[in-house]
Amino acid sequence: VKLLVMQGGNMSMMGHRLPEIYGTTKAPELDEMIRAHAKERSVEVEIFYTNSDAEFTDRTYKAWQDGIDGIVTNTGAFCFGSYLIRECFNTVTLPIVEIHMSNQIARGTMSVTGAGADAVILGLGVDVYMIGIDACIRLVNRKTARSAAA
Amino acid sequence: VKLLVMQGGNMSMMGHRLPEIYGTTKAPELDEMIRAHAKERSVEVEIFYTNSDAEFTDRTYKAWQDGIDGIVTNTGAFCFGSYLIRECFNTVTLPIVEIHMSNQIARGTMSVTGAGADAVILGLGVDVYMIGIDACIRLVNRKTARSAAA
Amino acid sequence: VKLLVMQGGNMSMMGHRLPEIYGTTKAPELDEMIRAHAKERSVEVEIFYTNSDAEFTDRTYKAWQDGIDGIVTNTGAFCFGSYLIRECFNTVTLPIVEIHMSNQIARGTMSVTGAGADAVILGLGVDVYMIGIDACIRLVNRKTARSAAA
Amino acid sequence: VKLLVMQGGNMSMMGHRLPEIYGTTKAPELDEMIRAHAKERSVEVEIFYTNSDAEFTDRTYKAWQDGIDGIVTNTGAFCFGSYLIRECFNTVTLPIVEIHMSNQIARGTMSVTGAGADAVILGLGVDVYMIGIDACIRLVNRKTARSAAA
Amino acid sequence: VKLLVMQGGNMSMMGHRLPEIYGTTKAPELDEMIRAHAKERSVEVEIFYTNSDAEFTDRTYKAWQDGIDGIVTNTGAFCFGSYLIRECFNTVTLPIVEIHMSNQIARGTMSVTGAGADAVILGLGVDVYMIGIDACIRLVNRKTARSAAA
Amino acid sequence: VKLLVMQGGNMSMMGHRLPEIYGTTKAPELDEMIRAHAKERSVEVEIFYTNSDAEFTDRTYKAWQDGIDGIVTNTGAFCFGSYLIRECFNTVTLPIVEIHMSNQIARGTMSVTGAGADAVILGLGVDVYMIGIDACIRLVNRKTARSAAA
Amino acid sequence: VKLLVMQGGNMSMMGHRLPEIYGTTKAPELDEMIRAHAKERSVEVEIFYTNSDAEFTDRTYKAWQDGIDGIVTNTGAFCFGSYLIRECFNTVTLPIVEIHMSNQIARGTMSVTGAGADAVILGLGVDVYMIGIDACIRLVNRKTARSAAA
Amino acid sequence: VKLLVMQGGNMSMMGHRLPEIYGTTKAPELDEMIRAHAKERSVEVEIFYTNSDAEFTDRTYKAWQDGIDGIVTNTGAFCFGSYLIRECFNTVTLPIVEIHMSNQIARGTMSVTGAGADAVILGLGVDVYMIGIDACIRLVNRKTARSAAA
Amino acid sequence: VKLLVMQGGNMSMMGHRLPEIYGTTKAPELDEMIRAHAKERSVEVEIFYTNSDAEFTDRTYKAWQDGIDGIVTNTGAFCFGSYLIRECFNTVTLPIVEIHMSNQIARGTMSVTGAGADAVILGLGVDVYMIGIDACIRLVNRKTARSAAA
Amino acid sequence: VKLLVMQGGNMSMMGHRLPEIYGTTKAPELDEMIRAHAKERSVEVEIFYTNSDAEFTDRTYKAWQDGIDGIVTNTGAFCFGSYLIRECFNTVTLPIVEIHMSNQIARGTMSVTGAGADAVILGLGVDVYMIGIDACIRLVNRKTARSAAA
Amino acid sequence: VKLLVMQGGNMSMMGHRLPEIYGTTKAPELDEMIRAHAKERSVEVEIFYTNSDAEFTDRTYKAWQDGIDGIVTNTGAFCFGSYLIRECFNTVTLPIVEIHMSNQIARGTMSVTGAGADAVILGLGVDVYMIGIDACIRLVNRKTARSAAA
Amino acid sequence: VKLLVMQGGNMSMMGHRLPEIYGTTKAPELDEMIRAHAKERSVEVEIFYTNSDAEFTDRTYKAWQDGIDGIVTNTGAFCFGSYLIRECFNTVTLPIVEIHMSNQIARGTMSVTGAGADAVILGLGVDVYMIGIDACIRLVNRKTARSAAA
Repeated sequence: VKLLVMQGGNMSMMGHRLPEIYGTTKAPELDEMIRAHAKERSVEVEIFYTNSDAEFTDRTYKAWQDGIDGIVTNTGAFCFGSYLIRECFNTVTLPIVEIHMSNQIARGTMSVTGAGADAVILGLGVDVYMIGIDACIRLVNRKTARSAAA
Repeated sequence: VKLLVMQGGNMSMMGHRLPEIYGTTKAPELDEMIRAHAKERSVEVEIFYTNSDAEFTDRTYKAWQDGIDGIVTNTGAFCFGSYLIRECFNTVTLPIVEIHMSNQIARGTMSVTGAGADAVILGLGVDVYMIGIDACIRLVNRKTARSAAA
Repeated sequence: VKLLVMQGGNMSMMGHRLPEIYGTTKAPELDEMIRAHAKERSVEVEIFYTNSDAEFTDRTYKAWQDGIDGIVTNTGAFCFGSYLIRECFNTVTLPIVEIHMSNQIARGTMSVTGAGADAVILGLGVDVYMIGIDACIRLVNRKTARSAAA
Repeated sequence: VKLLVMQGGNMSMMGHRLPEIYGTTKAPELDEMIRAHAKERSVEVEIFYTNSDAEFTDRTYKAWQDGIDGIVTNTGAFCFGSYLIRECFNTVTLPIVEIHMSNQIARGTMSVTGAGADAVILGLGVDVYMIGIDACIRLVNRKTARSAAA
Repeated sequence: VKLLVMQGGNMSMMGHRLPEIYGTTKAPELDEMIRAHAKERSVEVEIFYTNSDAEFTDRTYKAWQDGIDGIVTNTGAFCFGSYLIRECFNTVTLPIVEIHMSNQIARGTMSVTGAGADAVILGLGVDVYMIGIDACIRLVNRKTARSAAA
Repeated sequence: VKLLVMQGGNMSMMGHRLPEIYGTTKAPELDEMIRAHAKERSVEVEIFYTNSDAEFTDRTYKAWQDGIDGIVTNTGAFCFGSYLIRECFNTVTLPIVEIHMSNQIARGTMSVTGAGADAVILGLGVDVYMIGIDACIRLVNRKTARSAAA
Repeated sequence: VKLLVMQGGNMSMMGHRLPEIYGTTKAPELDEMIRAHAKERSVEVEIFYTNSDAEFTDRTYKAWQDGIDGIVTNTGAFCFGSYLIRECFNTVTLPIVEIHMSNQIARGTMSVTGAGADAVILGLGVDVYMIGIDACIRLVNRKTARSAAA
Repeated sequence: VKLLVMQGGNMSMMGHRLPEIYGTTKAPELDEMIRAHAKERSVEVEIFYTNSDAEFTDRTYKAWQDGIDGIVTNTGAFCFGSYLIRECFNTVTLPIVEIHMSNQIARGTMSVTGAGADAVILGLGVDVYMIGIDACIRLVNRKTARSAAA
Repeated sequence: VKLLVMQGGNMSMMGHRLPEIYGTTKAPELDEMIRAHAKERSVEVEIFYTNSDAEFTDRTYKAWQDGIDGIVTNTGAFCFGSYLIRECFNTVTLPIVEIHMSNQIARGTMSVTGAGADAVILGLGVDVYMIGIDACIRLVNRKTARSAAA
Repeated sequence: VKLLVMQGGNMSMMGHRLPEIYGTTKAPELDEMIRAHAKERSVEVEIFYTNSDAEFTDRTYKAWQDGIDGIVTNTGAFCFGSYLIRECFNTVTLPIVEIHMSNQIARGTMSVTGAGADAVILGLGVDVYMIGIDACIRLVNRKTARSAAA
Repeated sequence: VKLLVMQGGNMSMMGHRLPEIYGTTKAPELDEMIRAHAKERSVEVEIFYTNSDAEFTDRTYKAWQDGIDGIVTNTGAFCFGSYLIRECFNTVTLPIVEIHMSNQIARGTMSVTGAGADAVILGLGVDVYMIGIDACIRLVNRKTARSAAA
Repeated sequence: VKLLVMQGGNMSMMGHRLPEIYGTTKAPELDEMIRAHAKERSVEVEIFYTNSDAEFTDRTYKAWQDGIDGIVTNTGAFCFGSYLIRECFNTVTLPIVEIHMSNQIARGTMSVTGAGADAVILGLGVDVYMIGIDACIRLVNRKTARSAAA
């Protein structure tokens, strides 16, 4: 199993912004945690950061063509209005788990991009990345099982 | 660690309703899956069903007083408008993970009760219960760690 | 044919409230009228009152399991916002006719629970109960005919 | 007792449009069913079709002047926005029962013309015409009884 | 000076509807009052009733072609939503005074057709017809004066 | 008959503002026109200007106490949001005609203060003052006639 | 004079929730304060807590039948959306004073249940219970005086 | 191939209204252009004008019954609110191309009738009629090809 | 303890307006009742009327500077939209109790000025002034107690 | 005549996404169809794909500077919210025809970018590209004719 | 160059209200800063405070008549809803710079009065007064340059 | 002091678009004016143009890391909906002054990106760049003073 973790708008600055809400974990530290967790689960993982929703979309289509098994993504600021990404998610057939570190519902926000994902996980701070990976593995396995059964 | 799994409005009928969206797993089968998963994680689990948001609220306060460590809940139909439960969630200091089997954001729905939870997980079908338990365990452990550190 | 007539929020007080709109027929008098009408149509009828939408929902599921043929219901105050009942109606496969004594459309109200019913009848004062029973019988007969044809 | 059945916007095409929702009964077949039902109830019935809400309104006023006892009407597409008909209904003192073959509330539609009717019946497919006639007869009888008592 | 008085949706029934708001003056009586007032002002007047906004529009274009000097109109129920008439009013270059017997602003209604008129007069009961004619004469005179000056 | 003409917010600057909409007639010229017209109708008239809605309200109550017969008023900028004046108009029993020089409906504006007036006249440029006075005289005469008849 | 004090949704937990807004007075302490105040005013008082709006409604009807003189109630979380209680309040003829410890208007909330009460008091912390009782006594006395005068 | 060109509300007055937006081409000139264009494309064309949406609807049904191949229509003022026509379009299986001479999206308008058409073309001035005919021919050809293939 | 009672927009006319809602007590009678009640409570009271929200605001600031202990105010028509007063209330640190004689929530109105007050009391007719004074005394005493404790 | 065909957000994936709505024609096949059609019309055509609205905008300005005669564009997902492109379209003086393969009005969507185009064509499947090119040629010719006439 | 600095609703209390947002500079201190800054720029400056939007408007018209060159104004609480001032600003031809000490956009507020100003400056604390004066001088100079050029 | 001037969406085309609103100053001319003004103020200035909000965001973060003292930016078309930039502004601790050449409030637009800036300046044409630089210098100096004082 090979997963792509995509970090969207302003996520490269995590740990610098609103630390009372998002905590102080910086992007490189998070990357270490993600890689360690993936190793524990015996899955390959690639991590990608961008502030451009065009690049984000291009990378998603590339992942689809390259045979990546699933995507875990914190779309960051893209969640507020990128219909480009929402439609991209609706196009590719990869399992996609969108994650956010805070509970957006409690803050009255509804992710636009999340409407194109298979699952959405909100809250849990940095742990949301690990739970997101586990959720994505389950989606991949379910899909594999269905294919095998067909 | 001891968790309470609460099933809200119409959840006792799961597997009977909109099977093309929610699947065909019936409540007793789900209970077995939850118990097996909890055992694997070495956590105690209690499961509670009700169609009354008053009972749901009373049970939540009781769990708080009885020293339950965390709550995983599919509030079901209560999610559309129970301010009683939202305020109840805002009152108790237990970690609460709200889960729903379908991606409500894709369906344009925003849970009222979810605004009072610590984390919300949407999609994944019945797997959302297992992922929800794992997420709740993480919240409980984080809390325990903070208490130990204080 | 066996029908369940369910009286929802505040309906036990009918005849006491806004008599210039709803008339002065009290609940026991109405029950007599319903029973007489049912007898005339040779259908069995059971009448149930509750102010709890949880009880209302539980009773609906029980009716479904007990083999009741159809439900005629004035959901009363539940019509303003019980998503629990709406979803319950969407789950059970019994014919459900929702009735209200006044023309809610003329008053700018749209029943939430009615969205889950098969048919909705508005206006006619207490006669709406008799017309509702007749309508429900037709739905039951159509269903029986379809089953027989299948 | 003499009733006028009025078929509004696009109703002459019934059976041709969205048959999965409205069924395949064509207008002439329906007319037969209505006439048979009226005969059974010993009421006279006249049936009128138009795509013009002006003609519909003129016909309503004429019925009022000619001493028709009541009107049963599927206003069809007029229900979406004919304030002309709503105001016309509010003017005449004839009992008016508005009917629609599908449950408009379930489809999120609220009839504009229905706000001027005495009663509104939604759902039941073609049976709604028979139930509508029965409902109208009850309104006529109630009115006659009140006049007699005065 | 020659004026056309146009009576729109349901206006032929005036005096029959909501007499506590609109008074009991019937259409023929009103016509007498209008003709008397016009005579006093030495203007010719033609009166036209219709429930069809298509006829209303056709009549307006005809008046324009026939050299009528101005239009005074109670659009009646057309005022709630006839964009056809609003656009027609915006097309013709005749002075148009729209009148209503009650103060629609006090009732929270804003006329759609009035947006195409030169002036709108609300309230005054049946007197609004006389004041409307006087207002229209002023508009006609102003226009004549401008033409003469050009 | 004695009338009070009240000029509200910014009206003292008329002729200086948006002359392509409101014309170039200055306040003193208008006053002359009003006085001449009143004389012709044999009514007394007093003219009052203010930019304060408090003063406007106080003046209205004083007029009521002093036995003024009716009020003609261009509330000017007060029309956008003075609930104080709307409620004041709803309190006094004097006939009140609100006037505006442009057709506010065509501009998508609905006067807040107009909801408290007996009649509203929109459009006609400066002529609206003369037509407003005539309309107010009719209201006064109707009222006098009713009193005499009582 | 005998009053019923009803505590609605989540009120049994008062003092535990958002103490910076609602203070730290616990339910039993409050009960003491209420009883002492009632004694001082020489009125009998009964206190009732529930998280079920059905029970709340049933208790209200019972109070009406048992001859209670008035109701003072903090409907708590029910205030956000219980149309059941609003309609119940609209049915019974007992004086009802709804109270809330914080100024809901300052927080942008408008109580649904309050629309059915005779009076609403917002703010004052726990003192709102005492002021609410005094207000209710005044309503009872006014009613008694009116009855005596009739 | 035989097409029907239908001109809706106020279109008979084209060239007279807002010429700075719609140009000065009059209806008879346009008819010539349409006929010439149709001839060049070797299609038969019939042109129909009406200000009545009822006539418009009746004519559409007649075209369907008479075997017309497709409809090109500028619904004119009907586009603002004729649900009758929208539903009519949804009923007939003829290819329908709705056209408007100005870009309604740039003007913030969304055609109600257009929701029932197969294609909508906005802008291009009078050329929109020629482009609309070409588009309709393509739809007819696609349909014919599909039928042949079936 | 010294209190200021402020009467806002149109309140000087109380007893003259909508007596079926607000009763017939005139301003001078009310003043007597207020003074008698204050005397009974041994508090000094000053009463101030104005239709100007600027004067109202100036008076509030003066009261603050003069050492008045609290304000009881029926802001009257100012409640519909005076952000000036709302912000003024938010500035001064005096206890402020806003009162209204009718239950505004039942009438669907939410006071703008009330958002700046400490407490809001709605309903009770003229008794709301006495209850408002009692509530204000409690706020003053709480504040004094806190100061003494500090 | 030289045209630029621009394919916006997610259009490079056409044929892969929602084929039941958009068909199965892939981007390279479409390019062939466009080139063949252009050749037939004797116009030069360049085709450009991007998922970045910044690149899209830069390319548009370049086309303007390079003397391209017109633009035909399916802005794809950019149509949901790219004000950047809308303003860019409003800046350049090139004829711009925006096209979409499905009838967006039927789906309740109104293109943001379309508000800056000269014409918008909706529906027709892949044929919309050919019709769009023809429409653009007409706009170019009209513009050339106007320049020649000046 | 002579400027008028106008301080609107509640501004005389600046430094007393929400000091964590607006700072602690009191009105007299600010006046000193403004005068010193004006002196440095060699412009005359007059400062005016009022809580009455009527006085504010009268003063604006007076400034216009007296030949003041420009106005710098913090309209304070008037910004929330004074259409009187907005229209006044739209009438006078003086350069007007509206200023606010906090960034209202960040707080979700859009000034009503600012819609009538030439420029609006938000944020910068008390420095906004100095920047506002500099901006106004630029507007005055531009205007003078244009006049000289004409 | 070193400032970065950032020109956002479509700003490279300034002078070409809507010259009657924005004037005819082209980008290179503006750059000269900015550099001359900065020199006069003895501040270093760098100017950056982009149509990509991703590039804009990356450049902002780089400025923060490189020790730039403040940012002055006309976000251009990004102001309509770039949550990416708004969140970026909320992250960096540099003083940011957003400027626009026209008064957006008068045009009913509220900048999304401006909600993340420290100050917003609207109107003044090209002078807004000079005033924006002066405002930014003040913010930088205030910040330096605070740091020195700490």
